[in-house]
Amino acid sequence: MFKVDINSDLGESFGAYTIGADDLVIPLISSANIACGYHAGDAVVMSKTVRLAKEAGIGIGAHPGYPDLVGFGRRNLNATPAEVKAYTQYQIGALMAFCNAEGVKMQHVKAHGSMYNMAGKDIKLARAICEGIASVDDSLIILALSGSEMVNAANELGLRCASEVFADRAYEEDGSLMARSKPGSVITDEDVAVARVIRMIKEQKVEAASGKDIAIKADSVCVHGDNRKALEFVTKIREALKENGIEIASLGAFI
Amino acid sequence: MFKVDINSDLGESFGAYTIGADDLVIPLISSANIACGYHAGDAVVMSKTVRLAKEAGIGIGAHPGYPDLVGFGRRNLNATPAEVKAYTQYQIGALMAFCNAEGVKMQHVKAHGSMYNMAGKDIKLARAICEGIASVDDSLIILALSGSEMVNAANELGLRCASEVFADRAYEEDGSLMARSKPGSVITDEDVAVARVIRMIKEQKVEAASGKDIAIKADSVCVHGDNRKALEFVTKIREALKENGIEIASLGAFI
Amino acid sequence: MFKVDINSDLGESFGAYTIGADDLVIPLISSANIACGYHAGDAVVMSKTVRLAKEAGIGIGAHPGYPDLVGFGRRNLNATPAEVKAYTQYQIGALMAFCNAEGVKMQHVKAHGSMYNMAGKDIKLARAICEGIASVDDSLIILALSGSEMVNAANELGLRCASEVFADRAYEEDGSLMARSKPGSVITDEDVAVARVIRMIKEQKVEAASGKDIAIKADSVCVHGDNRKALEFVTKIREALKENGIEIASLGAFI
Amino acid sequence: MFKVDINSDLGESFGAYTIGADDLVIPLISSANIACGYHAGDAVVMSKTVRLAKEAGIGIGAHPGYPDLVGFGRRNLNATPAEVKAYTQYQIGALMAFCNAEGVKMQHVKAHGSMYNMAGKDIKLARAICEGIASVDDSLIILALSGSEMVNAANELGLRCASEVFADRAYEEDGSLMARSKPGSVITDEDVAVARVIRMIKEQKVEAASGKDIAIKADSVCVHGDNRKALEFVTKIREALKENGIEIASLGAFI
Repeated sequence: MFKVDINSDLGESFGAYTIGADDLVIPLISSANIACGYHAGDAVVMSKTVRLAKEAGIGIGAHPGYPDLVGFGRRNLNATPAEVKAYTQYQIGALMAFCNAEGVKMQHVKAHGSMYNMAGKDIKLARAICEGIASVDDSLIILALSGSEMVNAANELGLRCASEVFADRAYEEDGSLMARSKPGSVITDEDVAVARVIRMIKEQKVEAASGKDIAIKADSVCVHGDNRKALEFVTKIREALKENGIEIASLGAFI
Repeated sequence: MFKVDINSDLGESFGAYTIGADDLVIPLISSANIACGYHAGDAVVMSKTVRLAKEAGIGIGAHPGYPDLVGFGRRNLNATPAEVKAYTQYQIGALMAFCNAEGVKMQHVKAHGSMYNMAGKDIKLARAICEGIASVDDSLIILALSGSEMVNAANELGLRCASEVFADRAYEEDGSLMARSKPGSVITDEDVAVARVIRMIKEQKVEAASGKDIAIKADSVCVHGDNRKALEFVTKIREALKENGIEIASLGAFI
Repeated sequence: MFKVDINSDLGESFGAYTIGADDLVIPLISSANIACGYHAGDAVVMSKTVRLAKEAGIGIGAHPGYPDLVGFGRRNLNATPAEVKAYTQYQIGALMAFCNAEGVKMQHVKAHGSMYNMAGKDIKLARAICEGIASVDDSLIILALSGSEMVNAANELGLRCASEVFADRAYEEDGSLMARSKPGSVITDEDVAVARVIRMIKEQKVEAASGKDIAIKADSVCVHGDNRKALEFVTKIREALKENGIEIASLGAFI
Repeated sequence: MFKVDINSDLGESFGAYTIGADDLVIPLISSANIACGYHAGDAVVMSKTVRLAKEAGIGIGAHPGYPDLVGFGRRNLNATPAEVKAYTQYQIGALMAFCNAEGVKMQHVKAHGSMYNMAGKDIKLARAICEGIASVDDSLIILALSGSEMVNAANELGLRCASEVFADRAYEEDGSLMARSKPGSVITDEDVAVARVIRMIKEQKVEAASGKDIAIKADSVCVHGDNRKALEFVTKIREALKENGIEIASLGAFI
């Protein structure tokens, strides 16, 4: 039987600032990537978010990003591999404290925003992140863009790795995500998007923007929960998975 | 045989900014309180400092403070107990990542600056810090001002607790440190200071500013390493301890 | 004819985080207190907010707070008067840059949150803020709690000063706001609140929580715009002002 | 008679952290670039530094950088031109407050670190900075790398512009600084460096690393004051200028 994880970024609120409807998206996902205070989140939010995720029984992951709160970790920053490794360790450890406090084991790590994108194409940064993870707890799963340098670095280090796909994004022939600045980079037809996800899981293929089929690995589908439309789309994906006999399961259950 | 720990704050550098001569003070102490990024320190500095402390074989402790980098954690901040608990958990976890990476177990936690001072007099804050520590790892030792509410909170929770004394500070009759703003609050005669330390350890007594002897518990002596004079003073204390047959040992060895 | 200003805090968004419905509250007020990046707001938000306020023709003020983003400037911080003065200067200057860019003159300064509350009761902090304002531009108006030390400090320095009142808050006999932690501190009956505002303006009196009438000066009424109910309340106040022949005008027009 | 300005970065301390020997370098320079709180400096440091610079009678400039304190503004960050413009305005305004407080007029603006380097090669960022400066005060001088896009952007906008040269750095044939990562990028022979400066001023030429002479404009020489050797080098440059009949003057006096 096919299995897939559904992951979403959570715990992105900060002090008096709220982002996301964590309570609404949690029932729809199987793994949570929780912000760790560098690009979003703070200690109080992290504590609360780990508790919510634990109560829902979903997998808990650290979501380390660049130290750029005002940019929400979405801006490229030329930090050195040594810096990126230390940033990863720091943020994983910080979240682990709240996992300890709740008596739950951390399941995975997924880099955020620009750190995710830059490390996906730069083996040195990818190694830095994977080394950081392995040094803190080598049983953690790295959740990485399918076919990216992060997957390669995880394999080099023998780190457990889950490949992530995006339902609503177009792919280049090399397996990378088409830049958001290009026309057609976002798939707006929800039925098309859902059908693509099902095919990625069952056939391990997706049609690139060029029209050519490329190989892809879909261990986890990334979804968003920041508005009503996004939540409805997740529900649609869940229904399609069910109809196609694909089980939704946290990464730790099958990676 | 009497035993005592000597502790110092380390890892207070930040980015391009350097504070302290960590390499010079490490050989003179048995326990290090390492800043965790809120009031001082950053991920790269923490990584390096944990490595240095491990190589020297001294006890490693987290040194959580208020999120006030520009104030170096020295300004009172009326954070709630829930916030202080989460700040403590976050910072302990962050440092623990680097301990894991170096394969060394964290020994203790000592609150920094205003967090130390406020929690020493406020049982709610003291409980918040102790609960934070216990929730992450209940084998950690809390290093707290002798006779303070932190000691009381640790006892309530059954947390291992080490009492700290200051060589160069005057004490009030209630065992609290005399405020630095008062005349006579700092003991400038080094010989007097050293003699006081020896008596605190051997007799568990110190003469308060009023002239009255009060009870004190000296598991650890706090020293500084930010200038040549401070380093020489530590050397003097070490010599006096040796002459008096008092063994210097990390907290983990005798608490 | 009676005149009164209506002020509200604006520009509190930060990066990807949004707080407040600035576009909805702007048409209802005559003066805006714009966050300056310490407790809320960032450079991009400040630029946009100054433009919106200018287009609406309302008075523009700097809203300096403590450097505590995660606490939204609402937590007491024992910064020194010299620090508070420099924080005030820095933040006024930063906002002034955007006023220059829009070709509009800054009208006033109102301290935020804990800085407002602490300086309202501490003449040293009040002087620090007023000296900071006067040193940057001595034509600026300080908007301060009626009867507070801020008013006293402004008078000492010869700084133009506007007294602020709160529609929905109970007052102590000494003219200070009743602490929010006390029962009855917030007036929930909107009609009562509106009637109090009218009386404060026309009779310069308000009934303290004790039942005794006290003197009060109402140059400006503070309102909020962060939810629909708050916006409706402002509309109610505006209607009552009109019915009572009280003109709404920016501070600069009558202070 | 030839005139040249000598500029240095000042006010880079932050809270308890000290960088630079501002009091020693101030007597040797004619213009100060003062950090504005984003990459270094804080409000208290800025206040003090503006006062020191004013007392010495040297030109005062804002030194805006990226919001990356832990990276000291030295890491590339892909902020948008709109963000960079707002960052420039914010930081200029903040420093201007302290200039107002000291009754001195700000002379110039020089971007810091990665902002300087990126804008030197990217006309969009260069325009953003120049527009930011002009919008706050169009009488300010922009201090920019000789031959860079910053000079082009300043000319487009009609902003007063001073060209900066580096005594100890090798130049590429296109007038850009050779990357520090390349061998020979730093000129270690002080006599050679001094001779190059004199030639840049008198002949408006410098020998590029390739051996070819290129045109250069030397309105200001950048120097450092963070160690004894750097300070001695500045003294050497000053002596050579005197021997060659070149007058040292602040930018405002001749641009």
